[in-house]
Amino acid sequence: MDHTPPHPALAIDVGGTKVEAALVDSLGALVPGTRHRAPTGQGATSGELAAAVTAVVTRTLADLPAESELAGVGIGCAGPINLPDGAVSPLNLSVWRDFGLRNLVQALVPETTVRLRMDGLCITLAEHWVGAGRGYDNVMGMVVSTGVGGGLILDGNTVSGPTGNAGHVGHIEVGGFDDPCVCGGTGCLEAIASGPKTVAWARRQGWTGETGEHLSEAYAAGDAIAMRAVQRSGRALGQAIAAATTLLDLDIVAIGGGFSQVTPDLFRFAREAIALRTQLPYATRVQVVPSALSGDGPLIGAAALIHRASLVP
Amino acid sequence: MDHTPPHPALAIDVGGTKVEAALVDSLGALVPGTRHRAPTGQGATSGELAAAVTAVVTRTLADLPAESELAGVGIGCAGPINLPDGAVSPLNLSVWRDFGLRNLVQALVPETTVRLRMDGLCITLAEHWVGAGRGYDNVMGMVVSTGVGGGLILDGNTVSGPTGNAGHVGHIEVGGFDDPCVCGGTGCLEAIASGPKTVAWARRQGWTGETGEHLSEAYAAGDAIAMRAVQRSGRALGQAIAAATTLLDLDIVAIGGGFSQVTPDLFRFAREAIALRTQLPYATRVQVVPSALSGDGPLIGAAALIHRASLVP
Repeated sequence: MDHTPPHPALAIDVGGTKVEAALVDSLGALVPGTRHRAPTGQGATSGELAAAVTAVVTRTLADLPAESELAGVGIGCAGPINLPDGAVSPLNLSVWRDFGLRNLVQALVPETTVRLRMDGLCITLAEHWVGAGRGYDNVMGMVVSTGVGGGLILDGNTVSGPTGNAGHVGHIEVGGFDDPCVCGGTGCLEAIASGPKTVAWARRQGWTGETGEHLSEAYAAGDAIAMRAVQRSGRALGQAIAAATTLLDLDIVAIGGGFSQVTPDLFRFAREAIALRTQLPYATRVQVVPSALSGDGPLIGAAALIHRASLVP
Repeated sequence: MDHTPPHPALAIDVGGTKVEAALVDSLGALVPGTRHRAPTGQGATSGELAAAVTAVVTRTLADLPAESELAGVGIGCAGPINLPDGAVSPLNLSVWRDFGLRNLVQALVPETTVRLRMDGLCITLAEHWVGAGRGYDNVMGMVVSTGVGGGLILDGNTVSGPTGNAGHVGHIEVGGFDDPCVCGGTGCLEAIASGPKTVAWARRQGWTGETGEHLSEAYAAGDAIAMRAVQRSGRALGQAIAAATTLLDLDIVAIGGGFSQVTPDLFRFAREAIALRTQLPYATRVQVVPSALSGDGPLIGAAALIHRASLVP
């Protein structure tokens, strides 16, 4: 009996701009040369999206070494999802509404376990496994990018929620803000602190840059509006984290996503906001740190649905 | 004829005004004649509080039928608590700070399992067992009274948090409010919607009543300020619930506590606020209902720490 069986998981990550797949070993590392990608994006039809998924999965399956069996297939997908049905309705893929993604993949690997979760949960599993959340039982993973998403591990187990949408931290209400949100509310974290929303706020104050990268450069150069914009988003992040941790008694919050790298000061502003929000010792103890994942994080997290299945009830 | 199942739990509930204990059978019913109570309150020394706990426990133990064994002892206590140490620091019992309540009780029953959790978690276990949360795997219990507390059952398991303070819903930030909170923040749910805070707000508007009961009567009589006060607190409740359920994907929120009974309209205002906060289908589906527990709820919940131990990792 082999004590470290070479049974990789096939990991799939479906997002607004691309679908990726790769083999991931049981230690959380991508198997070299097995990563494949196809574009998704707003122009594609539902059939074209399905074909893109099928293509990357088929190519990755072909990379499975002859002596290996698949441990299973894990899929991370942008939300919202419908967990009982294995269906997805990614906000940024408008032609997919309650699309049966799990069944599409299952048909490609009929004999293999296929598990689907929201991408924010997968990221959190990856942080917990090989990233900034290692060694902690109470972790909130966050992605601050074109939107704000996340996932939860509480008392050592992932929290999926009955519909699969638990951990969606972007719609916590943040006091003192009234930015309108696509969800129908106002003052939601995502409506304030995502990359595009932070850029849009800065532009409304007269700043003339256009992207998160521009904002990052302007912040570094000391531009006054860019500094206020980043400070504002960092404050909103901190306030939302304070609400989450007073409710959940978290150990650590690991934040990734492109806009989380706008400046390291974003984390300082978030921590300062938490300190202002509450003095409850169990809440102020929360650590707020950058993600320690590489660009492989979403795939590692999808593979964790298989390799770390005991954490995903 | 005695139909009591043979192995009751001894349940203890420690709050700001009294400590109670009783035997509770494995179906979640108090064993008649075994409920005992002693006052706590601000005047007491730490030693007097400990003596009160010892007294009610000793009297309840004496009620154990000769043919019965104790299944265990469950303690619910006002928070915050320190779960690893079994210690408590109830906000309303200022002489107890990190007081070793679990050890005090354990010394009275050296051979018996003793478990301690925050009272909000116990209430939630009771709702899930015999109350409004029966049949649901994702439940937030809330107590709206002199403070606002609560507890969480997610994916069928209680969430205690590493320090034992998870479920403390009173410090979620509510947009559009800036009421100062004892926790150091502003706009916390508890600072707005507790009974005393709602009364205080009404009085600042010129209302002359003094208690939650007066406010209830004034609301029923159509007093304009009382109506605005209740509406305001109901709205805050709804906004906080919306934040919690977008994050946690809850099925149902069961609200008890004296002030939750100020008027049934409180629930309508809360539901209306949720509908305004978000249109995300997984969030708007949450049910917000009154507690279905009797006054035995806190003791039943403490007993659930023993009788329903599999839900309390």
